[in-house]
Amino acid sequence: MKESPLFWPLTLKNQTIYCLDETALPDKLVYLKAKNLKQALALIKTMKTRAFGQVLMAYLIFLLLLKKNTPAPAEKIMPILQKAADKINAARPTFPFAFFTKMVLGWAKEGVKTGEPLAGYVASKISHFLAFLREKRLAQARTLSALLKDGDIVLTHCNVSGLLVSAAQVCREQNKKIKFIVTETRPYLQGARLTAWELQRAGFDVTIIPDSAVAFALSRKAATVVVVGADQMAQNGDIANKIGTYQIALLAREFKIPFYVLTPPPSAAKTGNDIKIEIRPERELLEIYGRRIAPRGAKALYPAFDITPRELISRYIALELR
Amino acid sequence: MKESPLFWPLTLKNQTIYCLDETALPDKLVYLKAKNLKQALALIKTMKTRAFGQVLMAYLIFLLLLKKNTPAPAEKIMPILQKAADKINAARPTFPFAFFTKMVLGWAKEGVKTGEPLAGYVASKISHFLAFLREKRLAQARTLSALLKDGDIVLTHCNVSGLLVSAAQVCREQNKKIKFIVTETRPYLQGARLTAWELQRAGFDVTIIPDSAVAFALSRKAATVVVVGADQMAQNGDIANKIGTYQIALLAREFKIPFYVLTPPPSAAKTGNDIKIEIRPERELLEIYGRRIAPRGAKALYPAFDITPRELISRYIALELR
Repeated sequence: MKESPLFWPLTLKNQTIYCLDETALPDKLVYLKAKNLKQALALIKTMKTRAFGQVLMAYLIFLLLLKKNTPAPAEKIMPILQKAADKINAARPTFPFAFFTKMVLGWAKEGVKTGEPLAGYVASKISHFLAFLREKRLAQARTLSALLKDGDIVLTHCNVSGLLVSAAQVCREQNKKIKFIVTETRPYLQGARLTAWELQRAGFDVTIIPDSAVAFALSRKAATVVVVGADQMAQNGDIANKIGTYQIALLAREFKIPFYVLTPPPSAAKTGNDIKIEIRPERELLEIYGRRIAPRGAKALYPAFDITPRELISRYIALELR
Repeated sequence: MKESPLFWPLTLKNQTIYCLDETALPDKLVYLKAKNLKQALALIKTMKTRAFGQVLMAYLIFLLLLKKNTPAPAEKIMPILQKAADKINAARPTFPFAFFTKMVLGWAKEGVKTGEPLAGYVASKISHFLAFLREKRLAQARTLSALLKDGDIVLTHCNVSGLLVSAAQVCREQNKKIKFIVTETRPYLQGARLTAWELQRAGFDVTIIPDSAVAFALSRKAATVVVVGADQMAQNGDIANKIGTYQIALLAREFKIPFYVLTPPPSAAKTGNDIKIEIRPERELLEIYGRRIAPRGAKALYPAFDITPRELISRYIALELR
């Protein structure tokens, strides 16, 4: 089974991070280069990468810095890692970068105690973890595939970084036929540009609808299950995901359609109320490919995420990192 | 009080219909010309005009044909009117053109009985009716204004052809301050392009949100009331309106926000189930200003309207034609 390019959108080679440019899809499949912390952070802030790409980016930034500083002593490396963690954590407000950067800082502290060459110790921990993460993501996709039944039509929103493709591929091997309905997901159009693209190139039947047609689709039984991802999950099970997820969850309950969420491990947030919602620049809503869609001087509110409370979630499909 | 250009978007002058090009807004305020039935129908089919513009277009097409055929005898005029009615009725499936064309055919039959010169008789009926219609639309805006309270924030979807501007102007005269939240209304972007534009140029505070941010806005009490229009109202009170209206109505009920609808007179449809939903070309969803937003070969479903059942409507603000 060939994974979607979105399943593992970044790699590190020769001290360069190669990052799939998600803004160029579906027109072009290109990788952008980042050779230092600043360039890497810019790719996150401008949303060239997003969702799972941000997780990978966090680890690859550390890996890059460690490779660059391999012979340096721990006293020099520790502040570099700490500074990188602070900057990564602040890159975008809603995504729980701290969960991942803390892990790396923890390994670094361990490494100092062992007395081994620090860069090598931490780099090896990260590399092993990334291999483990890949396995666990595939396991998450298999868990989803086991929940899908022959004939299911999955309605999804935004993009879950290749997990739907992997799950659908497992279903196909088992002769379960699954179709997809994808909301276009304004303003960034991840549904139309990314999800429809990755599902279509993997040979699945996919139909794009406007974000406003979810009630229309669900009320006419055009979908049998909703599956979305989560950028963050609070400890009580509330999730933060792409703006629009909350209303889809409410509509799924209204029409008695199961609502499944592919979740990361819980963050430090106790409930959804503790999750800060990123408000993106107005321009990102008011311009499409550089062309303005509203009168000059118009105001806009573009929250990049919303909170879906746990009561609306039928089932969690967790990325199990233990 | 100066009306919005969308309040009365068409006029007839020198045997030419001048039609506000709603697709060129907000960049350009231009009027397209139609000198015959075919050109006029093309403006409807390509959505250069829409909503109330379609009502005006129906009457102005008859007026144009009558002026062109003024000296002709009734035997020649009647088939011309009948043919025009048939073509207008078939121009777009969800809009109840027959309601308006029947009225004109009725006047024509009356005119034949009176023995007066037919073209003059019917043209005079149409002209009187249009003046009456203008009064009734202003009355409808006043009814809405009376329902709005100082400090209200109105969430609206798509565009109600100048009625919100007129209502807000009445409120302003009475020192009631009203603000607006407008969904962008993909794919045609009437909210961002038309409603935000007409409200802003009339001096009102308006904020554009993605169609996916309605639950976010309503759950945070960012709006106090929802007001939308209706392209058609069935006899039982179900309405057909721009795709997305149904889910906004469900969300308004969820968050206990009143949901008001500006309605036309009831059509021949008994319930919403009898209203045919127009499915527009996939291209209209998959291309934005000519640029494709989805992979080649992607499928799309773009229902132009949905049905909101009467149970979700808190109040009807009717256009009273009696």
